[in-house]
Order: sequence, then structure tokens, then C-alpha cells
Amino acid sequence: MAIDPVDLLGRLISCPSVTPEEAGALDLLQAELEAIGFSVTRLPFDGDGSYPVDNLFATRGQGGRRLLFAGHTDVVPPGDTVHWTSDPFVPRIADGRIYGRGAADMKSGIAAFVAACAAIPPEAGTIQLAITNDEEADAVNGTEKLVRWMANNDHGFDFAIVGEPSSTETLGDSIKIGRRGSFSGKITVTGTQGHVAYPHKANNPLPVLAAVATALSTEKLDDGTAHFPASNLELTTIDVANPVSNVIPMSGTLRFNIRYNDLWTPESLADWVRDRLASVDARGTEIDFEVSGVPSRSFLSPLGSDIDTLSAVLAERTGKVPEYSTGGGTSDARFIAQYGPVVECGLVGPSMHKADEHIAIADLTGLTEIYASFIRRFFTESRA
Amino acid sequence: MAIDPVDLLGRLISCPSVTPEEAGALDLLQAELEAIGFSVTRLPFDGDGSYPVDNLFATRGQGGRRLLFAGHTDVVPPGDTVHWTSDPFVPRIADGRIYGRGAADMKSGIAAFVAACAAIPPEAGTIQLAITNDEEADAVNGTEKLVRWMANNDHGFDFAIVGEPSSTETLGDSIKIGRRGSFSGKITVTGTQGHVAYPHKANNPLPVLAAVATALSTEKLDDGTAHFPASNLELTTIDVANPVSNVIPMSGTLRFNIRYNDLWTPESLADWVRDRLASVDARGTEIDFEVSGVPSRSFLSPLGSDIDTLSAVLAERTGKVPEYSTGGGTSDARFIAQYGPVVECGLVGPSMHKADEHIAIADLTGLTEIYASFIRRFFTESRA
Repeated sequence: MAIDPVDLLGRLISCPSVTPEEAGALDLLQAELEAIGFSVTRLPFDGDGSYPVDNLFATRGQGGRRLLFAGHTDVVPPGDTVHWTSDPFVPRIADGRIYGRGAADMKSGIAAFVAACAAIPPEAGTIQLAITNDEEADAVNGTEKLVRWMANNDHGFDFAIVGEPSSTETLGDSIKIGRRGSFSGKITVTGTQGHVAYPHKANNPLPVLAAVATALSTEKLDDGTAHFPASNLELTTIDVANPVSNVIPMSGTLRFNIRYNDLWTPESLADWVRDRLASVDARGTEIDFEVSGVPSRSFLSPLGSDIDTLSAVLAERTGKVPEYSTGGGTSDARFIAQYGPVVECGLVGPSMHKADEHIAIADLTGLTEIYASFIRRFFTESRA
Repeated sequence: MAIDPVDLLGRLISCPSVTPEEAGALDLLQAELEAIGFSVTRLPFDGDGSYPVDNLFATRGQGGRRLLFAGHTDVVPPGDTVHWTSDPFVPRIADGRIYGRGAADMKSGIAAFVAACAAIPPEAGTIQLAITNDEEADAVNGTEKLVRWMANNDHGFDFAIVGEPSSTETLGDSIKIGRRGSFSGKITVTGTQGHVAYPHKANNPLPVLAAVATALSTEKLDDGTAHFPASNLELTTIDVANPVSNVIPMSGTLRFNIRYNDLWTPESLADWVRDRLASVDARGTEIDFEVSGVPSRSFLSPLGSDIDTLSAVLAERTGKVPEYSTGGGTSDARFIAQYGPVVECGLVGPSMHKADEHIAIADLTGLTEIYASFIRRFFTESRA
């Protein structure tokens, strides 16, 4: 059974699946996947301080190499619809493009992959899909729990593709092979409050806080790696909130964020911060450091093998080896990377999150062909 | 006509003159002063962002040397009266002490000076009193305007005594001959806001703000002078108030306060701050400095002459030359010092502002004698 990716994308756009409302998008996907031989499991997750989210896991084939495709059906809100030429949840085809919320980010990626699967015989190998309906908002009850559930239920994978827009100018000119990590911390310096007229009875924490700020912001973390820029720390805020000019404050806080490459882990960064703090003369104050929230780990998928295959497929189509990028903000790929190699490979996405979001129909059919070519080679080319 | 300082203090305590309510205290004082030959002018001032305040100017005598006594009838609130043994506005005599709000700060100083004046013939010389009812709160419509009014109305003075508690352990062991100044400033560093993931598109002002903090807090202002400790700068607050960890903030502010000796003026301090800022590498940020509020100037009354006379009077009584102090917070003496030499000479004040505020009756009569002795010598000893 063939699937037309343009038709499927139009039907997905028709579901107003603004996070976390599934709005029929996962139901539609489940029906399409079951029709081409997938077993589908719906995985609603809730709790951990966020809203409940519906998720979908699908698998087809037995044994051999296992490919995972990951993505999301949820979309960002359309905003004020006066900025749209037509209803954002009614697909509109014009000038060789398809318009609608989610056209680029990323119902098109899902439509292309499902259409590609329809063209591959089920016996070719094991294909899995992990689709969440919460990538655009909290991402608490989505991909992170979905891939953990997969690991706990023997649904491992050898290679994963996230279908997010990854191309920069033309389809296939870039894939994302890793992401920087993000690490936030808070430092509090506590001295002794007092009156500015009697400084000998107080111990002002602010000169020490300034020294901490300097110690953190002047020392280079690294010089970058083959696929990543240098890791970088930015001070994001310093706050004391002392409203009066005649009081030496008791304490002050400083917060910072580090975007870091594959040379670091949250653990090694925490050690680095502690080393920097140890270099500061505390002058009798107490310097406390805590990690803020849960850091996202950096990752770099192992080069060679499947990434080479994907690169070759793209190069044959575009005439040029794609750029291996690690730029941009975070994505759900960071959760998948904890379990196996993952790349992001998808459309050109300049209109994502904007009014009149759209993609070129030729790119959608092109991406379907790219996915299908890759799947064939993934299962047939021998691996080390 | 003799005046009993204990009786007068008791009647002043009976007026609940919590700032800015005069509550009869100035009326009582006016009647007492007129009875011993003073001409009294009431000077209500208002505006400049503060509440209206009643003030009193009194003068007696013609020509010759002119002595000014300054003080305040207002008192701080009694607080929760459960902490008082008896009504704070009903004078209570027990164990050789007189209890009540304002007993120490500073209705006793006023009672002693008025009683001393009663013992001096009016023809002895020109005596003036400048009494405000707003020293304990805003001090906007009080002594500052009162002494300006005096200057504008040809009521100059050769020497001034402020009757605030100035003794440390025993009556007459210390007088205050000057005060440090207070100078507050605000520095704002403005860079370019951006996303922490793209620091090359932003310019973080916080490392520069930290460098400013260090530049201000590490350089010594001076080593102190004969009568003053070293001038001292304290950082009082640093604030950015950036709530999110992925944004490089646009700007941050730092506030500081300097308590400074007679080597400095607000103008020379502003130059010093600008020099320190010029030593910081601004790295493309903008560093703005502004003075906060109106600085209080430091002052040191000229030693010798009348201060020697007062010192001699005290030494004859106590057997010891009094300490010449410049310590403590600010007082209304800073306003008077702009027009002539001023000292603070009064009681021991450890109970001021506390529950069961009190003074020793022997100290009150002692202070009356001290004032009277000084007034006599002030008018009779020849001056250079």
C-alpha cells in the first residue's frame, strides 16, 4: 500500500494538535501505521509537575538491524490568525507549497518517513517510531519517558533519525550529528550584614561575589573540538536586592549558564566550577554552589557507518556532502542520544513557528525518497 | 528666674512629640524661653517631598560673640509599650534617674541648655537656639532649612553646640568635633542582550560589572587623618533581575556607599570614582555613573579657641581632657557645619531609642552646669 506524503501531511495539519492536545493526530498516525504492518502502542505519561501527554510507539519487522525514527505531532499555537492567509489548521496548496501549522515543524518529517516505510517491505528489517505530542512545551512526559520505556521493554535501536528540520538552505545540505549541552548553576556568597558606617563589624560578601564572577568568566573552558565550538560560560544574573544604601548586605547570588561541547559532562563541569571557586579568596565568607535544574548533556553521535550512509544518500541527491552540524538550541535528540547514535535529518525550516508556515512539496517528496533510500541501505549494507 | 532642668525635662517628656507631631513641646519651650528674655520665631517648613514640620528659632542679647545651641524636640516612637515599665510619655523618677521617651535623645540636652541660659544675664551676649521637630525622620523640613533661614536673616553664629548625647561612658568624657560624610552612587553597565547559545551576537555586561565592583572595592581611598579613620567604600547591592537562564542580560547595576573623612568632598569622590571606572576595560559596554541623592559632606570643626574652652570646662569637671570624636552616624550637625564651627556635647546616651529610655538626674544637672560654665567663658574670654 503506497502512502502519498502530501496527502498524509494535509490530514495531519487538519488536526489542531497544539501541545499537549493530540487532536486526532496520533489516532490518524496509528491507523496509517497499522495499515502498513506496524504494531502500535499508545503510551500516555503524566506527573512530574507537568500535564499528561499522549505518545505513540510503533514497531515493524523482526531481528536484524533496528532503525528508530523519532518526532512529534504537537505544534506551537498559530498566534493571531489575522497574520495567516488562511486557516492554519486547513492545509492549503499554492505555488508548489503546502501551508499550515506544523507543515515544517514537523508533521512533514513524520509524513515523509511513514510514506517511506510504506515503500519498504516489512521483512526488510526492524523499523520503530517514537512519536510524542509534547516536544514544543514542557517535554517532561514526552520523548524522554518514551525512550526510557523503550529501553525497559527491549526496544533497542542501532541508529535513530529525528525528523526535525535540519537543512539550512536546500534540502539535504546539513544534518545535525550532535548538540551542545546546557548547564546552569547558582552561587551564593554569604557574609555578615552590618551598617556601612561600621564595616569592621560586618563582612561584605559583594567583593567576593565580584571575584567569583571574574573567576568564572575569565577562564576558558576549552578551544572547541572537531565538530563543536568552544564551550562557553555566560553570567546570566547577579542579585542582592538590598534596597538601602546604609546597609552592608548579608549575601548575594550569581547565576550562570554553560553551553558545552563533547569534552564535558555535567559532572566534570561541576568540578571545574568548584575549582574556579577554590581559586577565590573567600575572606571569611561562605561560598555555596548548586546546579540549577537538570543539565542537558552534550552528545556527538559516532561518526562513520550509518552517518556515512546517510551522508552518501544526501550527497547523491544534492551533489554535495552535507554539513555535519552541532549548532542550534536543544531538541529531543538529547534524550535519544543517551541510548544510541542519533542524527537530525529533515527539511529546510525557516518558516517554522511563524505565520503561513509552509514547505515546498518537492522537498517533501524529496525527503520521502531520501528516507526510503537510507532505509534500504541501512538494512542491506553490511556493518562492522 | 531660675529653671529646674529636671522639672523642664519632665514637662517636655509629657509632650508625646513623635516626629513630626510637635504635641506642645515647642509651645512649652517657647513659653520658657520668652520668660527668660528670648525673642522666639516659629518657622513651619513644608514641601520638598516631606511632611510639614514646626521649628523654633530663639535669640537673646545684642552684639558681641554669638553662640548657637541646636537640637530637636521630636522623639522616636515608643514601640510596644509592654516593654516599658510605665507610660513612656509620663516622666518617672526612680533610683536617681528620670525615665521617658526623649529623656536621653534629646529633651534633656534642651532642658539643660535652657536652664543654663536662665542662669546667665541676658546682657552677657547673644545666645540663639535652633530647635526642630524633625531630626529623627526625614530631616527635610528641619535643621537644614532652619540654619539656611538664619543665614538669610543675619543670624550668624561664632560657635554652635548640638545637645545630642555625645558622652560615651561618663558625662563629659567625649565631644564630637566632626563627622564623616556619606556619598552614595549607582553604576550601570549596559551591553547587548542575547541568547546564551549565541554569545557572539551579544555583549554580556556582567563581567564588566564584576570588574567595576572589584575596581571600586580594592583601591584604598586614604589612610585616615588625625581625627578620622580611613575613608571606606562598601558595595551595597548588585542587581540584574534576569529571571531566565538562557538569556544574556542587557544591563546590570551596582550601588555603593562611601563614608569619608575630611580629605574628601563629594566632588573629589566623584572624580575618584570616575578614575576607577576609567581603569576598567569596558569591552564595548557603556558604563554610566550617577550620584544617588544628596551626599552629606564631611566636616571637622576648627580646633583650638572655643573647642579648647569647652574642653577645659569638661576637664575641670571630670579631671580628664575629653576625647575628640568624629565617630557615629550622621546628625543635624552636618547642616550647621556648613555655616560655622559646631560640636556635639551632651549626655551619655546608651538608652536612647530603647524602652525605658532614661538619664541620671546628676548628669542632667551636671550638663546644665557645664553649659552654664561654657557660656560664661565663651562671652568673657578674649578671642583671637
